[in-house]
Amino acid sequence: MSAPKLIAVDWGTTRLRAWLVDADGGVLARAGADEGIMAVPPGGFPAALRRQVGPWLGAHPGLPVAMAGMVGSRNGWVEAPYVECPTTVAGIAAKLARVDLGDGVEGLIVPGLAARDSSGAPDVMRGEETKLAGCDVTDGAVVMPGTHAKWARVGDGEIRGFSTFMTGDFYAALTEHTILGKLAEEPEDEAGFLRGVQASRRPGGLTHQAFSARTLVLMGEMPGAQVKPYVSGLLIGGEVAQGLAMSDDKGGVTVVADGPLGRFYELALAEHGRECRLLAPEDVFVRGLLRILDAA
Amino acid sequence: MSAPKLIAVDWGTTRLRAWLVDADGGVLARAGADEGIMAVPPGGFPAALRRQVGPWLGAHPGLPVAMAGMVGSRNGWVEAPYVECPTTVAGIAAKLARVDLGDGVEGLIVPGLAARDSSGAPDVMRGEETKLAGCDVTDGAVVMPGTHAKWARVGDGEIRGFSTFMTGDFYAALTEHTILGKLAEEPEDEAGFLRGVQASRRPGGLTHQAFSARTLVLMGEMPGAQVKPYVSGLLIGGEVAQGLAMSDDKGGVTVVADGPLGRFYELALAEHGRECRLLAPEDVFVRGLLRILDAA
Repeated sequence: MSAPKLIAVDWGTTRLRAWLVDADGGVLARAGADEGIMAVPPGGFPAALRRQVGPWLGAHPGLPVAMAGMVGSRNGWVEAPYVECPTTVAGIAAKLARVDLGDGVEGLIVPGLAARDSSGAPDVMRGEETKLAGCDVTDGAVVMPGTHAKWARVGDGEIRGFSTFMTGDFYAALTEHTILGKLAEEPEDEAGFLRGVQASRRPGGLTHQAFSARTLVLMGEMPGAQVKPYVSGLLIGGEVAQGLAMSDDKGGVTVVADGPLGRFYELALAEHGRECRLLAPEDVFVRGLLRILDAA
Repeated sequence: MSAPKLIAVDWGTTRLRAWLVDADGGVLARAGADEGIMAVPPGGFPAALRRQVGPWLGAHPGLPVAMAGMVGSRNGWVEAPYVECPTTVAGIAAKLARVDLGDGVEGLIVPGLAARDSSGAPDVMRGEETKLAGCDVTDGAVVMPGTHAKWARVGDGEIRGFSTFMTGDFYAALTEHTILGKLAEEPEDEAGFLRGVQASRRPGGLTHQAFSARTLVLMGEMPGAQVKPYVSGLLIGGEVAQGLAMSDDKGGVTVVADGPLGRFYELALAEHGRECRLLAPEDVFVRGLLRILDAA
């Protein structure tokens, strides 16, 4: 077994996950709890973290502890202010925040990134900058799907900017809290997904296109079980079309996703004739923390 | 007091509303209950209706009773099958469904309309065809805002087609069930609304634009109280842009809305240099039933 190099922590709004990692990003052990930052009482961050990583700290004194995610937000342990794009992994590393875990142990918190889109509207990410660092992409588009999917534009090793799409948040709201939610489900059906991707390229915009998920079923032209993948296709298809349009890169696209979600992005990108390189979220997160610490 | 001409009933999924109407569409009396079609037990439609309009029927024997809305759907009293566009008020009147209210009284149910958009996707309305008939528009676009807003295209007195936008359904889902719902509200603020309308014309599509409702507040560039009107502006602004693009008419637009919602459509249309004629929903509904009965 290789030597531990780092304790990596992804601490978000609803969950804490931790990994004991070797120098190559290999995972030696995992821990985690449904104890996101919203569940931590004032002053409770050191104790909450030690409940998960305490045994590793005891066994490997002096091992660095690096964290990313909402733990560095205004509502987290300490605020690690956003670094403005364009920037680099070294630019992120220069702004690490430091916290006291007690017993002389220090923790590092990765700052988020801020950017402006072409119209001047602000955009932010927190946690995804670490995954982005772990992708080792020097030129091209990197997509980090999720509740608020991020499309980053990288060129000559520089993070030029990024755009957020509320794809996952919309999916949950539309399929649970609108008229589209009253139908049966089979969320991973590829035919339904592709039908949605194709519909996303038609006129009328999302609020019009989405109604067809209902009328197609009403008219007997689509099985009710395809509604959810169809909505997924509308949202991811729209995201991919807009994300590609906002990027000037014409090459393949790196997507941080696995399983059915990764497959959906692969299918949607193929509709635009683009290659898709899938990377596993856990792998790029722990590697990203190693890259940022190396650059510090 | 003028003589009653009609008992008009708008019977939807969650509510029943009824009006005693004279020949000019003047309202002589109103009734209503939170007893939509979903709350009516099998065989219970005649009794549920009589609870609201029984006294009027007793006082004015032989008065016609005309209904529109989901009462004519598959889950309603009887199914009044959709009439395909293009059609006319006479085409709707030719397909009235008939039901028995008991004691020899007959009720009429207005059928909904079906249409295809330019890409062949099906669309439907039920209840709005009656409002449309009451607008007395022979050429131009007619908008009926709501949970599922309808944009109808009328030319030479013919209803050529229409498109649905899930504007109200999206608004409720986004402001109550996504990250955008966690902020303070002042839903009728015109400055916030106009800011949203302008944002709807920028690149990235709705799922990207919507995230700026959060980041603008986070960055201190918009008060939290403007989030809801901003989202409203994004949705109505997007609907108006797409609705105008899907219509070939270049003139003024008739909008069936009053109060703050009517004002929002007026503002969004003004952004596109279009005149807005506002008509009150109740007025056009009762007048629409009179027009349809006249054509029958």
